[in-house]
Amino acid sequence: MENNINKTLKGHKLLMVMPWEQPDSFLKKLSAEFPDLKVAAYVQPEWDQGHPPFPEEEWQDVTLLLTFTVLPTPEQAPNLQFVQLMSAGANHVLDAPIFEKTNVKFCTANGVHGPQIAEWIMGTYLSFQHRFPQYQLKQSAQSWDRSDLLLIDDSTDKTIGILGYGAIGRQTARLARALGMRVHAFTLHPRPTPESRRDTSWSPANLGDPEGDFPSAWYSGSSTEDLHNFLSSGLDLLVISTPLTPNTQHLLSKSEFEVLSKAGKGRTLISNIARGPVINTDDLVFALKEGDIRGAALDVTDPEPLPVGHELWGMENVIITPHVSGASKRYNERVLAILRENMGRIAGAAGRELVNLVDKREGY
Amino acid sequence: MENNINKTLKGHKLLMVMPWEQPDSFLKKLSAEFPDLKVAAYVQPEWDQGHPPFPEEEWQDVTLLLTFTVLPTPEQAPNLQFVQLMSAGANHVLDAPIFEKTNVKFCTANGVHGPQIAEWIMGTYLSFQHRFPQYQLKQSAQSWDRSDLLLIDDSTDKTIGILGYGAIGRQTARLARALGMRVHAFTLHPRPTPESRRDTSWSPANLGDPEGDFPSAWYSGSSTEDLHNFLSSGLDLLVISTPLTPNTQHLLSKSEFEVLSKAGKGRTLISNIARGPVINTDDLVFALKEGDIRGAALDVTDPEPLPVGHELWGMENVIITPHVSGASKRYNERVLAILRENMGRIAGAAGRELVNLVDKREGY
Repeated sequence: MENNINKTLKGHKLLMVMPWEQPDSFLKKLSAEFPDLKVAAYVQPEWDQGHPPFPEEEWQDVTLLLTFTVLPTPEQAPNLQFVQLMSAGANHVLDAPIFEKTNVKFCTANGVHGPQIAEWIMGTYLSFQHRFPQYQLKQSAQSWDRSDLLLIDDSTDKTIGILGYGAIGRQTARLARALGMRVHAFTLHPRPTPESRRDTSWSPANLGDPEGDFPSAWYSGSSTEDLHNFLSSGLDLLVISTPLTPNTQHLLSKSEFEVLSKAGKGRTLISNIARGPVINTDDLVFALKEGDIRGAALDVTDPEPLPVGHELWGMENVIITPHVSGASKRYNERVLAILRENMGRIAGAAGRELVNLVDKREGY
Repeated sequence: MENNINKTLKGHKLLMVMPWEQPDSFLKKLSAEFPDLKVAAYVQPEWDQGHPPFPEEEWQDVTLLLTFTVLPTPEQAPNLQFVQLMSAGANHVLDAPIFEKTNVKFCTANGVHGPQIAEWIMGTYLSFQHRFPQYQLKQSAQSWDRSDLLLIDDSTDKTIGILGYGAIGRQTARLARALGMRVHAFTLHPRPTPESRRDTSWSPANLGDPEGDFPSAWYSGSSTEDLHNFLSSGLDLLVISTPLTPNTQHLLSKSEFEVLSKAGKGRTLISNIARGPVINTDDLVFALKEGDIRGAALDVTDPEPLPVGHELWGMENVIITPHVSGASKRYNERVLAILRENMGRIAGAAGRELVNLVDKREGY
């Protein structure tokens, strides 16, 4: 997409403030692509986002900024036009004057988490289906024990429900389809037309579900009835991939587990890679104990970190990881790909909208 | 495929000898599809294949047989025309007179293992990438420890080499592509044309790689040089999915691990779901210790069962399961689908070749 030639960013200066050393290969690509561009790059540790490691004058002529959280005031950076955030969300900048009070365009890194989180979701699902945790215990005990052979099941002809059909949900759907599963998608707003089903945010090439082709059923709505309708659709795996908002706080509570239990007869696994509070933890523990659901894979919890002694840690049908599903050695590379894509659009034809542009009224 | 109407198997008798109770739903489907067909069904435990649980006269008018290992003599079943084996291979019947000395057609259940074994392969691979075994230990210790976050990697842009591109290899390739991986296939015979790349054996609908579309590179040959050429192609994951024959015994030995080490710089994971002796175990252990390869996922071992005290059990970068990757609750259903497909072909137009037909000269 970014292969226009003779692009120019003459007069522009890019300031990169990254928690890691930026790769030389990237800087070389950048200067080949935009020979007129000035670049200043600094490493800013994630745990010290308050004190930029450069003199304040550095902001003066910056027009383009790559950052996780470090932001100038409008006065410090009077020439700033564009901010590429390294995070998938923009929540943490909504109150910054440079966001609120100026026309500076902000873009997120939405899409950088799709592959690794989809892999976490299907990897933990396959662990349940194929009993990997149980076999790990047998391996530790040096036991060649095949007595639970008949409990193993594969994923063909199973149904996955994806609550929130964004970058993560779409790549999860791609994997599910390759496994022979049916996909049911749930979105807040209805998606009745091909246009409405399209993915407008960034995605790595050949991954995700750009056209919205994979779901065989689309559910939507903001009412409890809408949600229960979706949860009643016969789900073997329910993936929570919706942002945490006041409306999604405790979205999965007692009555939702009851609906799942009734419709799924205890066969539904729940996978949460969103945020802990989307699920009411006490109700989840109860549902697990009652056999209302089959199990849970949790990369996020509430409370988080999960304290020592919490009942969830020791439950046999629960897989817990400490909020790591978004980690990938390729994270940085993807952020830089989005940055380059947007710089190409800034340098190129005027009419081309930026990718992952934050709507200042909506805040995402 | 089997939806012809008015098919007849008049005069035919199907004898089913299965280790499990055959499902009523299947018998109903069968009698709706072939109203003239006589059916006799028996349960024969896997551990007692020597003594059929029916009187010898039952063989007399049998024309079609479904079985794992129970076979009549040519004299016992003079009318037998077709045997549907429940196993993917035919090795165990090659010496039986009814196979060797008659024109009875034998078909295997090749393809029944594709989905579940491909899931085992990619499930264990994702476990390595996302450090699930390490997080399982942390969960046991109730430890919310994210210190190894930077060691997590996803599967995008990685290369999988599949040694033996049959039903299992093809479904594995489908999953690998959905994950964003490159696929390198290795086959004994060269596959230069679209026709030669096609899958002629049975596969569940919409799974596998029927046209051979997924590999970006095809390797083949029977010489050490051919094999080393493939192993040098930059593999992050090497899947062993080739039958055990005199030619594949210890196919992966010291010099192959050296080639992998040189080409992959210690990054190659090995996944063996074929048979233990395809790998020289001592050489594997040595390669693991030296860091010549990154790790191994082993569903089969040599010796098998792996004895208590064997070094492999305790190696940190090894996942072992006790020869269970082929298990699935849907195994039976798939075998019966192949049986129905073949019965439809017997009842239907004369010229239609049976699926998974064993070549009596080749023995597979």
